[in-house]
Amino acid sequence: MPGNTFGHSFRITTWGESHGSAVGVVVDGVPAGLKLSESDVQKELDRRRPGQSEVSTPRSESDTVEILSGVFEGITTGTPISMLVRNRNANPGAYDYIRNIPRPGHADLFYTEKYGFRDHRGGGRSSGRETIGRVAGGAIAKKLLMSFGIEVFAHVIELGGVKAGPVTVEDILNNVEKTVVRCADLNAAELMLEKVRLARDEGDSIGGIVEIIATGVPAGLGEPVFGKLDADIAGGLMSIGAVKGVEIGAGFECARMKGSQMNDAFVMKDGQVVPGSNNAGGVIGGLSTGLPLTCRIAVKPTPSISKSQKSVDMAAMGEIDIEIHGRHDPTIPPRMVPVAESMLALVLADHMIRSGRMNPEYLLE
Amino acid sequence: MPGNTFGHSFRITTWGESHGSAVGVVVDGVPAGLKLSESDVQKELDRRRPGQSEVSTPRSESDTVEILSGVFEGITTGTPISMLVRNRNANPGAYDYIRNIPRPGHADLFYTEKYGFRDHRGGGRSSGRETIGRVAGGAIAKKLLMSFGIEVFAHVIELGGVKAGPVTVEDILNNVEKTVVRCADLNAAELMLEKVRLARDEGDSIGGIVEIIATGVPAGLGEPVFGKLDADIAGGLMSIGAVKGVEIGAGFECARMKGSQMNDAFVMKDGQVVPGSNNAGGVIGGLSTGLPLTCRIAVKPTPSISKSQKSVDMAAMGEIDIEIHGRHDPTIPPRMVPVAESMLALVLADHMIRSGRMNPEYLLE
Amino acid sequence: MPGNTFGHSFRITTWGESHGSAVGVVVDGVPAGLKLSESDVQKELDRRRPGQSEVSTPRSESDTVEILSGVFEGITTGTPISMLVRNRNANPGAYDYIRNIPRPGHADLFYTEKYGFRDHRGGGRSSGRETIGRVAGGAIAKKLLMSFGIEVFAHVIELGGVKAGPVTVEDILNNVEKTVVRCADLNAAELMLEKVRLARDEGDSIGGIVEIIATGVPAGLGEPVFGKLDADIAGGLMSIGAVKGVEIGAGFECARMKGSQMNDAFVMKDGQVVPGSNNAGGVIGGLSTGLPLTCRIAVKPTPSISKSQKSVDMAAMGEIDIEIHGRHDPTIPPRMVPVAESMLALVLADHMIRSGRMNPEYLLE
Amino acid sequence: MPGNTFGHSFRITTWGESHGSAVGVVVDGVPAGLKLSESDVQKELDRRRPGQSEVSTPRSESDTVEILSGVFEGITTGTPISMLVRNRNANPGAYDYIRNIPRPGHADLFYTEKYGFRDHRGGGRSSGRETIGRVAGGAIAKKLLMSFGIEVFAHVIELGGVKAGPVTVEDILNNVEKTVVRCADLNAAELMLEKVRLARDEGDSIGGIVEIIATGVPAGLGEPVFGKLDADIAGGLMSIGAVKGVEIGAGFECARMKGSQMNDAFVMKDGQVVPGSNNAGGVIGGLSTGLPLTCRIAVKPTPSISKSQKSVDMAAMGEIDIEIHGRHDPTIPPRMVPVAESMLALVLADHMIRSGRMNPEYLLE
Repeated sequence: MPGNTFGHSFRITTWGESHGSAVGVVVDGVPAGLKLSESDVQKELDRRRPGQSEVSTPRSESDTVEILSGVFEGITTGTPISMLVRNRNANPGAYDYIRNIPRPGHADLFYTEKYGFRDHRGGGRSSGRETIGRVAGGAIAKKLLMSFGIEVFAHVIELGGVKAGPVTVEDILNNVEKTVVRCADLNAAELMLEKVRLARDEGDSIGGIVEIIATGVPAGLGEPVFGKLDADIAGGLMSIGAVKGVEIGAGFECARMKGSQMNDAFVMKDGQVVPGSNNAGGVIGGLSTGLPLTCRIAVKPTPSISKSQKSVDMAAMGEIDIEIHGRHDPTIPPRMVPVAESMLALVLADHMIRSGRMNPEYLLE
Repeated sequence: MPGNTFGHSFRITTWGESHGSAVGVVVDGVPAGLKLSESDVQKELDRRRPGQSEVSTPRSESDTVEILSGVFEGITTGTPISMLVRNRNANPGAYDYIRNIPRPGHADLFYTEKYGFRDHRGGGRSSGRETIGRVAGGAIAKKLLMSFGIEVFAHVIELGGVKAGPVTVEDILNNVEKTVVRCADLNAAELMLEKVRLARDEGDSIGGIVEIIATGVPAGLGEPVFGKLDADIAGGLMSIGAVKGVEIGAGFECARMKGSQMNDAFVMKDGQVVPGSNNAGGVIGGLSTGLPLTCRIAVKPTPSISKSQKSVDMAAMGEIDIEIHGRHDPTIPPRMVPVAESMLALVLADHMIRSGRMNPEYLLE
Repeated sequence: MPGNTFGHSFRITTWGESHGSAVGVVVDGVPAGLKLSESDVQKELDRRRPGQSEVSTPRSESDTVEILSGVFEGITTGTPISMLVRNRNANPGAYDYIRNIPRPGHADLFYTEKYGFRDHRGGGRSSGRETIGRVAGGAIAKKLLMSFGIEVFAHVIELGGVKAGPVTVEDILNNVEKTVVRCADLNAAELMLEKVRLARDEGDSIGGIVEIIATGVPAGLGEPVFGKLDADIAGGLMSIGAVKGVEIGAGFECARMKGSQMNDAFVMKDGQVVPGSNNAGGVIGGLSTGLPLTCRIAVKPTPSISKSQKSVDMAAMGEIDIEIHGRHDPTIPPRMVPVAESMLALVLADHMIRSGRMNPEYLLE
Repeated sequence: MPGNTFGHSFRITTWGESHGSAVGVVVDGVPAGLKLSESDVQKELDRRRPGQSEVSTPRSESDTVEILSGVFEGITTGTPISMLVRNRNANPGAYDYIRNIPRPGHADLFYTEKYGFRDHRGGGRSSGRETIGRVAGGAIAKKLLMSFGIEVFAHVIELGGVKAGPVTVEDILNNVEKTVVRCADLNAAELMLEKVRLARDEGDSIGGIVEIIATGVPAGLGEPVFGKLDADIAGGLMSIGAVKGVEIGAGFECARMKGSQMNDAFVMKDGQVVPGSNNAGGVIGGLSTGLPLTCRIAVKPTPSISKSQKSVDMAAMGEIDIEIHGRHDPTIPPRMVPVAESMLALVLADHMIRSGRMNPEYLLE
């Protein structure tokens, strides 16, 4: 069954393989009347693209986006927006040696078990390159949300065992792009970078945690009981490759809390009733509370490592040792930042329209 | 937008309020030819129903299910199965005092912000009583899966800060119903029970962690890139009230692991290529690996507590203190066990059909 | 794959068999704040129920509806509305003789080919009794639409070869319930009634055409290019049993027209640009034009007839003659009127919400 | 709400405007293992493309397709197939004169009413050029169906009032591409062609009827009660621009038939129980019967005509006369043939997978 479409009222359909001719996305449900240019999308793709720093793969791609439809005279028309990014630095031949050898931690074997065979070139569809469509679609979602005062941003809060100290929203907005590891605590960022270098030099990789925050979200978003806001967020974030856990607000810590500690008491503020604290992370009963949405994802270490690993040659049906050489990231969380932001933005744009808070057809002036 | 339907090929639509006349579910997409009786469903509802032990609310409901359609001469026909449970011990008047006072940790305020007003009787639709439809639908999913050798079960692994020790699948199957806290480590179960009593006596509540496992799942289930198996599991589990986190396999621990530790090497076993370990928790790249699916959810402490809390009287628009008396569970995880099993079973039944591994129309003999 | 749900933003899920214990519907997506009582629904069910006149089956059912959820203190809450109608006059034994004999013109054989076996009691799910859920859901859609000035009504324009003369909207509103054939041209109605009696006396049945109209529909409803308003109308109307054709506006007559005849020229009216004629039937390019929506459906003669017909005994695998005795309508179009209205109302309520013209969460005052 | 996706298990998402840079489609849900090349798609696009004969617009487009993803080494991989066709002969400036003048019979005015403004270049998204995505997706559906012995074809049976005589399936397969009007009755085709020339010379246009047939369809396809096969066919065909009516089997003629005439009696044939006639057109109760699917669509005359028509200048808000010069088809049905075939093929491919008759993941050998 088709699985490449995400969202209900604001909806993306992504396509493309790592070493095919292109990757892209169709975004359907964008309200008419939004100013949109390729540079709005390009700036987010530039944050995701490979080769930007020493913590990312050296594959060299400009990831230049072309908008093919849905925009007329610089304004969205309400019709689907198709976007295309050509793969320029594909090198499919580099993967010939793994045609019959599933890489540990990768989906190679399971694509074969599902589809009968697989496109073995760099993971094909299961490559991280698939996220270009998410980021291009997310860029439009973000621009839409901004016009309603909603801002989405993310930062690395743990990498290779190094935890960031507490940071403010301002720290995140100011600092996160100052360091290649995208950690807003600049001291921790230095230590994280050391961990990345160490892992890379060992031919190994490290995991981490990314926190994603949305501010300005109105109360009441979410569709109980299965389209709850947190359910859609969890599904969206878990759909990103390498994510193994999602938590919201106090998250797993709530298992050790009492009701009297966890509950956010209500207070009056500016004539409104609001929660006085945010252990809920901005969602209760599947509905947004009006406080910042706060979620965290666990990102596993990059499965591609040059250290020797055990696998099986499926042609010979014998166990062998494999070293994954070539181009890969020693750690994923820094490049995950724009991808995770995109998924949260896509969920929020969808729910803004679903709730009637954003007109599905055209933006009011 | 409607949010009360879950699943694509095996699909439930639930309805009903805590103190309305009934709750229920329509299950659509059940293949024809499955033997099904009310007792198949009742036995799961009995595990979820209130009043079963000292760790659950004293509300007295038999939760007797009636199957209204879709079954003919004891066999499913392929048409939708409608199931109904009457509310017998509803006591709506008991909630008059909170008509204007949102309870901390509950969705009361946010339903009002979403819909303009709310059914204040015991949480209305946001009550845990909503999960009856999930469990009734899940009972059918479980029976279907069993006929394909797939078994789903859950157990409490942490409660009020007490962690269970390591247990085997056999421990879980043998022990979990021996103790009211549904922990397979019977020593830990004793300590957990003490924590529950203590919290109850203090007028407080405690949180915990539930682990859900599915064995016998074939490799290759899941629909990349947005209908990945883990994405659907995360969305389904997070849609249960009180869940604040979901993790799969190593989960959040993967943030502290290296690729060489996290990757599950491939080995030959019985002529098959399989992962030799299960840090992935049975899913890689969004596809099942053939190893047991292993997920955990963080369950917050029951928000209804009799300890005094701050809230606001929305009629007077003034802050007040509130004590939630009446019938509620001092802790949720033990009763969450059949609910969480149901959500995982629903996702798996859906993906079995979506993948073509289970005929959507009738069961082959 | 599940097929018992209709609509996107206003959505019904129907269930139930002709001779099971009950039939019903869950309506999800009804905005909060609508006044709703069982009598709003009952009055539409009364128009559909059997036994109301000599042109309908003598099966005696009061079709009394019970609203089980989603309404609190007489107002919709935004949560799903579950409605139940018990089958009182079921007589499953009366169908034993056709357990192995598919009735010509019925779905009996094809349900068996799809599901491996079938509920043979009066057609099971393929019975016209299935439309109770449509009408109950449609009653809510109609009430919603009325609050936006949209009215939906239908009338029989051809029956047994007798065509009604031209009628006005007022004729329809005034006359259609005055005659058991539901034709607004009262002279034609008399002739139609004669045709029904004649067919019934011959043990035969007759077909006809129903026209469905919606007034007050704003311009711009519809979601190009696959969710066009006329596409959704055609799909909805064709999903009703016995319908073999759907046309809109000039319909099949447009095949004989020239562009200069078919095109509706634009004129100024009350300061608005509108089509000066309505050959389009209120939809162009899949979008409503602001003029009355006008569609017609071809309804085949009732397949159950007492005249002898050829069929096959599937136990003996031999050809036999069969006479369908018992309770059935000699013609369907008069009872189709409320069903067809319901389907159009469901499509329009859905599109009103999808377009942002009706708030999906609560009605503005 | 997004409307550019069609199908559930076999699903297309189309995009693009008439005078934008490109048009295209993403096809999701194609089983892995199908041989597919651009020429499979191109041959169908060539049947649809403009400029092929005197009955089509002179706009010169090669409509060359590029497959961007989802095919590896000539075989589909199970991942989404993205296809792109560049617009080469766009001439947006030619439409400046209608920027403020809605063309009668076109959607111009209603797009403006829906979205607040419109892409006025040749109809933008409401252009017939939008059907390229349908035909490209339909080409894949057809190829899939062929491997299961299902063939879909269409022919013009009425044009400008000229009706074709009865033809056999062989006539259609042999003759339909022999004449530019795509009528299998070659004598009638001559008369039709005269009608087209006459209309064109008058600056007018003519309508017609297209019949679409599918042979080899197994019994039991369709998902009662809303995803019935005929409901999905009706919705799919009515979603094509210019279609004003859909009928199946006896269609509107059934209104004049008796049950004893309309019912298809069952007979034994080759050891199978089958309908002995096909008034049903291959669908009863929403399920395929195993006999040929037979549907007809009414196609209105091209709305673009050079004869003078009344419209309104929306800048000046005054009524004016308008003549639509430039490139347009004098009649649509001949070019509708491959489009209508595509929609039927898409519905059938979808239902083959939904029913379990075609593996959703990979083709069995």
